[in-house]
Parts: sequence; structure tokens; C-alpha cells
Amino acid sequence: MNVTQPKRIAFVGAGNVAWHLAQALASAGHGVQAVYSRGASSREALAKVIPGALPVAAPDFRAMALDLVVIAVPDAALIPVAADLRVAPGTAVVHTSGSQPLALLHVVEGARTGVFYPLQTFSKGKLLDLAEVPLLLEAQDEETLRLLELVAGSLSNKVYRMGFEDRKRLHLAAVFACNFTNHLLGISRQLLQEANLPAELLQPLLAETIAKATAQDPFAVQTGPAVRGDDPVLQAHQHMLQQHPRYREIYALLSESIQARAKIEQIRH
Amino acid sequence: MNVTQPKRIAFVGAGNVAWHLAQALASAGHGVQAVYSRGASSREALAKVIPGALPVAAPDFRAMALDLVVIAVPDAALIPVAADLRVAPGTAVVHTSGSQPLALLHVVEGARTGVFYPLQTFSKGKLLDLAEVPLLLEAQDEETLRLLELVAGSLSNKVYRMGFEDRKRLHLAAVFACNFTNHLLGISRQLLQEANLPAELLQPLLAETIAKATAQDPFAVQTGPAVRGDDPVLQAHQHMLQQHPRYREIYALLSESIQARAKIEQIRH
Repeated sequence: MNVTQPKRIAFVGAGNVAWHLAQALASAGHGVQAVYSRGASSREALAKVIPGALPVAAPDFRAMALDLVVIAVPDAALIPVAADLRVAPGTAVVHTSGSQPLALLHVVEGARTGVFYPLQTFSKGKLLDLAEVPLLLEAQDEETLRLLELVAGSLSNKVYRMGFEDRKRLHLAAVFACNFTNHLLGISRQLLQEANLPAELLQPLLAETIAKATAQDPFAVQTGPAVRGDDPVLQAHQHMLQQHPRYREIYALLSESIQARAKIEQIRH
Repeated sequence: MNVTQPKRIAFVGAGNVAWHLAQALASAGHGVQAVYSRGASSREALAKVIPGALPVAAPDFRAMALDLVVIAVPDAALIPVAADLRVAPGTAVVHTSGSQPLALLHVVEGARTGVFYPLQTFSKGKLLDLAEVPLLLEAQDEETLRLLELVAGSLSNKVYRMGFEDRKRLHLAAVFACNFTNHLLGISRQLLQEANLPAELLQPLLAETIAKATAQDPFAVQTGPAVRGDDPVLQAHQHMLQQHPRYREIYALLSESIQARAKIEQIRH
């Protein structure tokens, strides 16, 4: 995508999210002019990969003519960082958190506040194409929201307006689909390792499971011993987990939930 | 793949697994000569798509010179089906179940018994390339195992010998990675629907989560409020689940398990 109205932008934070967003914004033609973060080496490393960006030693941007300051720091650091931030009057200031309200930016004097939440997990070293990453926007007023839409639209085809209540619900759904799923994949891998079986064995099955669950309602395509009501297998599996009492508890609870859901599906169809 | 020594094969069962294996074996050059299943229409439908295959009305193959009979029926049907099966002496007979022992085929008089377990989830109508699907083999003797390896090797690059104990452990790991993961994706989708949010929103995040968890140890790349120890978010999420007491229980147990695991990872690194 190419931007018709390039913006002057600064970053607060130089972690994974800042790293990805700053490079993507610069590539889209915006002027990423400054990077502040507490650690000198991290702000210098990020500024170095963006032509024209300067590392700055304090979060004071009052002397710079900026359109937008993006705060991309861990949730726990948001409140102290916002308290220290200084901007010229009328500068838009956004945070990038899915689980924090817009309101905590109200402490930034003279700022027009917003939220610019990329719904993705970012890792260092692996640059992602943002074109398909949902960017969820919120702002204190319509003018600020339009500015954010313009910037977001230069990065992604999937730009949505979303208030805090919906963003929280989306975040909760993401915890189930991503954080919890990742933990189950970890348990699965641990069980394979303990049996000296190669982790790659499950990959084709996992890929197909995800493909099916994405194309259809996962509840409608549930397979396995729980949904079949295969009690001997359910018991044998729980017996095999006797060295892992918490995993056995997870097994029992998820099997119970699958069976409860299957009853609802039966009534429906 | 092209087979150098085509085998004469019959199928018992005409469900998803039979449908996929029979077509793949015929495509690889084997002679799939007969299909038996209890339902006349299902055996006729499967025989129709395989050139040279005949639907047969009883599981009696004594008059046919077969190398291999593949029993692909639900686990619960395996024992009665094996009891009814008749084959010429020396015919190899396999089942395709991950959670059933080889021994239950001992009732098939004169048969050389084995297991031919494709580690994949099959859906009607969607033909899968079996080349990357692990085929897990077991047999009563080395000669039968070699026959199965030859047949399996004509379908897939991933052929393994695996006894019942390991197959059971693999199946347990697959329940966590696939069946339980699917259920969590169902919960996530339900939560999105209840909030009137589009299910597609989470797809890029899910794809990246799975890609990461496949390339690395999932425990080492865990993200989210539980591993961060973000108690306000954990409490807010559980409060949002008050209409779904079982999902709230799943949320609490998985968060607890993520935190317990994170402590072990910290000690390690």
C-alpha cells in the first residue's frame, strides 16, 4: 500500500510491537522521526533500521511537529509512561493495548487520544506482512479517528473501529483461541517427548484440524473420544496422565465440556 | 508415488477413512477389488468411484485372492466386524484405529494381522494428499510388517513402525493438540458470536500462533495475561465469563497450568 498523506510519527517503546509497526509505517511512506525508550540500546537499535529516525533520551516531543505518537509498551508500563509523556498541543497519542482503556491516556496534556491495537502476536526478527492483520481503532473524537484510519489503512486492509467493551471481548476470545491453544500444544509436545516420539508426527493432523475449525463451526466438526462417548479410551487416557495431575484435570474438564456442548449441538440439529 | 508391486486389496467399511485410503491406494496403482459395508448404498458409492472395485454384500472374501483386507470402521464396530470377517488363509488383515490393539483381530481365522493407522482427520468430500500423512504400522510378524510398509510407502513419505503402547501415547497427545484445541476454538468463536464480532478477526493471530508453536517449543513462546501474571485482566476475563460457568472453570484451570509451567521454564533458563 502507498500512502497519499504521509504523517510525522514518533514511537515510545522499542519492543516487538514498536519494531514491527515503526518499520511498517516507514515502509508505507510515513515519516517515523523519533524513537524513545527507557533503554538507550533498544531505542538506538530501532532508530538505526529506520531512515531518518532519531533515538531520543526523554519522552518529550513538544519541540517536534508530530501528527502522531504511538506508545507501544507492556500494559504494566502504560500508566507511568503516559504520565511522563510531553507532546505539542493537538498531537494524536495512541496506545497499542487490547486490554487497556483509552481513558488512561487522558493524563497526556494537550493530546488527542486514541487506541491503535494490532490483533497479532509479534516476534523479534520475523517481519510480518501487516496487510491482513486486523487493526482495531478507537479515539476520543471523530477527527482523531479519521487520522488513525488513514494511518491504519496505509498498513492493512482490515481496519475496524472498536470500543473498549468489544475490544475486551475480542481479547478474551483470543486468549481461548491462541494463548490456551498454545498451552495445549505445549502439553501435547511434552507428552510426545516423554514417550520419545517425534513432535513432527502431529503436524499434518494439527494443520488439518485448524483448517477445518477455521472453515466451519468447530463445535460442528468436533472429533475424538469425548464427543464419541468412548468411555474406555477416556479412562485409559486419564490413567496414562497419573504422573501429571493437572493435565489429568484439564483432560477431564475439557472432555466434560465437549460432551456438554455435543448435547446442545444434538438438540439443535 | 508409483508402486512397483501392486497389491490386491479389499475394504471393510465405507466411511471417511475407507473413502480416502481406498482412492489413494487405487491411485497408487493397487487393485482395490472389493468394498463391503453394512449399508448397501455406502459400499456402492465407494465402489463406484474406484475402477474395477465391486461392492459385496457380505464380509466373506474366502473366494478372492487378496493380499490385504483393510477394516476401516468406527472403534465400537471393530469387534463385531472382525468376528464376521472371512478371508482365505494367509491374507493380511489390518484395522486403522489409533486406540485399539492389534490383538482384537486374532479372531479372524487364518489371517495375518496388523494395524495401518493414518494419523489424520478425514472429512467427506475433501480429498487430502497422503504424502505427508504419517502412517503408523504394526503387525504380528516381520513378513506382514514388510507387506504393510510396501503398501504404506506407496502412499506416504512418513511410514513408521509403532507398537500399541506408543500408539496410545501418540493418540493421547493428539487429543490435546487437536480435539481439545478444536473445542477451545469453538468456545472462542461462540464468545465472538455472542459479542456480535466477526469470527475472521482472529484468523491471522491464530495462524501465527500455530506457526510459532510448531517452529518452537510452545511453552517457551507462551504469551497472554496468565504467563504475564496480569491479575486484573485474569479477573476481568473470569467476570466476563459469568454466564458460562464451565468456560470460566476452563479459563481458571488453564491459566493456573500456564503459570505453573512458566515457573518450571524460569527455573530451566
